[in-house]
Amino acid sequence: MRPLTADVLNPAIRNVEYAVRGELAIKAENYRVQLKKPNHGLPFDKVISSNIGNPQQKGLDQPPLTFPRQVAALTEYPELLESASQLFPKDVIARAKELLEEIGSIGAYSHSKGVPLIRKSVADFIAARDGYPSDPEHIFLTGGASAGVALCISMLISDAKSGILIPIPQYPLYTATLAQFSGVPLPYYLDESSGWSTSPPAVEAAIKKAIADGITPKALVVINPGNPTGALLAAETQAELVKLCEKYSVVLLADEVYQVNLHRGDEHPFTSFKKVVRDLASPVPLVSFHSTSKGVTGECGRRGGYFECTNISDEVLAMIYKMVSVGLCPPVSGQIGVDCMVRPPKEGSPSYALWKKETDAIHAALASRTKVMAERLNKLPGVSCVDSPGALYLYPRIELSKKAVLAAEAAGKAPDTFYALALLDETGICVVSGTGFGQKDGEQHYRLTCLCAGVEEYIGALEKFHIGFMKKYE
Amino acid sequence: MRPLTADVLNPAIRNVEYAVRGELAIKAENYRVQLKKPNHGLPFDKVISSNIGNPQQKGLDQPPLTFPRQVAALTEYPELLESASQLFPKDVIARAKELLEEIGSIGAYSHSKGVPLIRKSVADFIAARDGYPSDPEHIFLTGGASAGVALCISMLISDAKSGILIPIPQYPLYTATLAQFSGVPLPYYLDESSGWSTSPPAVEAAIKKAIADGITPKALVVINPGNPTGALLAAETQAELVKLCEKYSVVLLADEVYQVNLHRGDEHPFTSFKKVVRDLASPVPLVSFHSTSKGVTGECGRRGGYFECTNISDEVLAMIYKMVSVGLCPPVSGQIGVDCMVRPPKEGSPSYALWKKETDAIHAALASRTKVMAERLNKLPGVSCVDSPGALYLYPRIELSKKAVLAAEAAGKAPDTFYALALLDETGICVVSGTGFGQKDGEQHYRLTCLCAGVEEYIGALEKFHIGFMKKYE
Repeated sequence: MRPLTADVLNPAIRNVEYAVRGELAIKAENYRVQLKKPNHGLPFDKVISSNIGNPQQKGLDQPPLTFPRQVAALTEYPELLESASQLFPKDVIARAKELLEEIGSIGAYSHSKGVPLIRKSVADFIAARDGYPSDPEHIFLTGGASAGVALCISMLISDAKSGILIPIPQYPLYTATLAQFSGVPLPYYLDESSGWSTSPPAVEAAIKKAIADGITPKALVVINPGNPTGALLAAETQAELVKLCEKYSVVLLADEVYQVNLHRGDEHPFTSFKKVVRDLASPVPLVSFHSTSKGVTGECGRRGGYFECTNISDEVLAMIYKMVSVGLCPPVSGQIGVDCMVRPPKEGSPSYALWKKETDAIHAALASRTKVMAERLNKLPGVSCVDSPGALYLYPRIELSKKAVLAAEAAGKAPDTFYALALLDETGICVVSGTGFGQKDGEQHYRLTCLCAGVEEYIGALEKFHIGFMKKYE
Repeated sequence: MRPLTADVLNPAIRNVEYAVRGELAIKAENYRVQLKKPNHGLPFDKVISSNIGNPQQKGLDQPPLTFPRQVAALTEYPELLESASQLFPKDVIARAKELLEEIGSIGAYSHSKGVPLIRKSVADFIAARDGYPSDPEHIFLTGGASAGVALCISMLISDAKSGILIPIPQYPLYTATLAQFSGVPLPYYLDESSGWSTSPPAVEAAIKKAIADGITPKALVVINPGNPTGALLAAETQAELVKLCEKYSVVLLADEVYQVNLHRGDEHPFTSFKKVVRDLASPVPLVSFHSTSKGVTGECGRRGGYFECTNISDEVLAMIYKMVSVGLCPPVSGQIGVDCMVRPPKEGSPSYALWKKETDAIHAALASRTKVMAERLNKLPGVSCVDSPGALYLYPRIELSKKAVLAAEAAGKAPDTFYALALLDETGICVVSGTGFGQKDGEQHYRLTCLCAGVEEYIGALEKFHIGFMKKYE
């Protein structure tokens, strides 16, 4: 028989790239295995996975919040409600009972859109956040935000001339999904010189260019706060983007998974696109995504998330429902995580003090690490770094010498990938090079997370490497 | 602006149909809501969801196995290891510690293929089952089997002339996924008169017809034990199917999620396609799927599963890995469910006796209900039902009168859907009509699950309805 080779597979798959778990991450995994051997021969003793926003991973160990984990344990094994009720605060027990009353067993498939009670919790959270009503029937719980994004993009790409506007740099889920479904990525460039701001005229220019090229722009992706940039959109910019969507009949896909990750709270508050659309009484179809993986929850492995549809017709909602029903339902433990995220303990309830202490500590650690890292990076020769007000990342720019660029070329690598590989080889620190997110031609960046405890040691190793690298190729 | 209407979406989505959660299920959901009102006016007091193999759903309440739930609770909230260690058997504690040692926090993303230790557990399970080695690197953990099936089909469909052989009747995940990715379903018909057996000549005829029609058959889907039929393949048939795949260079997709659901144990043992492929020393590329949702585990909401790749090249494995990495990782609690499924308590360990008692009870209940239901259905006028040796379903055939067929036509429904809607309206029992699974032209069937406790009451209502329906349309 003919063997199964890659060339008989869907050719679109070949074009899919996802750098966050690409070459660098695979090499880091291999190092991790090698480190388990007694004489590993590596110049470092641990791999630091700064490539992915995964707060609770080994070596980072951001502690999980206690409240959702206690609720989860009780819903997993309800016998604990009887035998160990003294171990759990009253509000935890009440929440678990309420959820179990609705769900029955967490081992049962739920409604394909998610447990109705939990969708109601999400709607209440959104209404309180925005000051506008939210309908649980317009909410779909998902296995992380990524599943929802992929579904929406797969539905919007109607032919090879369908395009989707994406920021550059962007989180590579978008380019990967567009490649998989053979849609056309329509890049609009963020402006590094003004803190990675989004320029509505640049977005409009990208729309016009697409139309001139015979591409139909179907949707505009906005990531706010930004990934990998950490930038937060100004409210006026948001309004202008909504108006652009209206003008060109474009669906707005708002990736708002970092909405809780704001390091300068009052100074830079988060405004949802839902609120902006309602403030403007705009008819723009909006899908906004949220997740349990980020924020202070950081429960990535749980695969919890949701999207809310605004200004989406019943006909289209029914089609989305049909599509999610083929996948049966999102993970119920992820759904319970969503419930705890949008309904945390209230002030005055037994779990509140601990919850507040835990979330404050996470916020403070992220804010302080982001600040320290940006400061230290900015002091390095050939490095400039926007001090990110949100999300979990920094996206420093590096100016590599001609010699370094030529060495990268000789190695068959993009210059920033070459740099990032050398960083990994020398320090065990795994980052993702700018090539994976997109950047202007001739620029070099990398993304690193601000999740790592022990900033001193970590940034110290990075500095030492950088200075050595610059010297080697000066 | 132009509103977002269905006609601007991906036209492939329009063709997706998934009857298990389609019209009948939606109507049943609405009845469930209506029943909560004091004067609901319905002729029944509960909805019985016989449409979906969801053992732990409310009203069915198959109890979850204790061992995996205890392990899950401890991994959710490891503090219980200290404070409540007396509540858990030693082997549960040991398993939870072993998993936590490997995983760290279940709130962290795992490896995109799944936790290495758990893939090792799966490989050991497969090796013990088949007597052939299994490589953890060839195993991908998934969010239920469906996610893996959809991924494989999406990769195999390389253009609109790519076809996939599917049994008729089939589980509609296959037709739905083919519709979504614009592949051509190539039906081969199972033979009801010989217990829904699979005929290799019929499969070969379907392959030849496809080739004659200019379609490239890329894969053969076999569901064993069958869904909706419950039939178990004979070992000789399996060997012949493998040889056909070899002859025509077709990938074998073996849906083996019901491998534990065998009601006549020794008489009808399960043989995996992995074993058959290895017995024959065949080079046929095989992907076999398993799940925590069925069997005696029945943990549907957990979204756990895996697929094993056999005779798949490293190049293609790398492409699969790339694709799963875009989705980050399967739910970690589902992965832990997989570990407990493939590594249940061993004889002699503290949890064994309870685990044995629980699994025996579930097996016995399923076997007895299947038998009773098939017997009772076969006594009804105009009904014939293959007594299924496996899976969770019966797929009775109904002979509807000309008058009933005309009434269905007048209502704009397929005859069996018309019947199933009437059954739901009168009794609250929700089944799925044969139209959703496929059948020969002019035939009528429906699928119902054998999960419902209280067979007497349930089947009694069904009988009463059937006799009334037949009378009404005689």
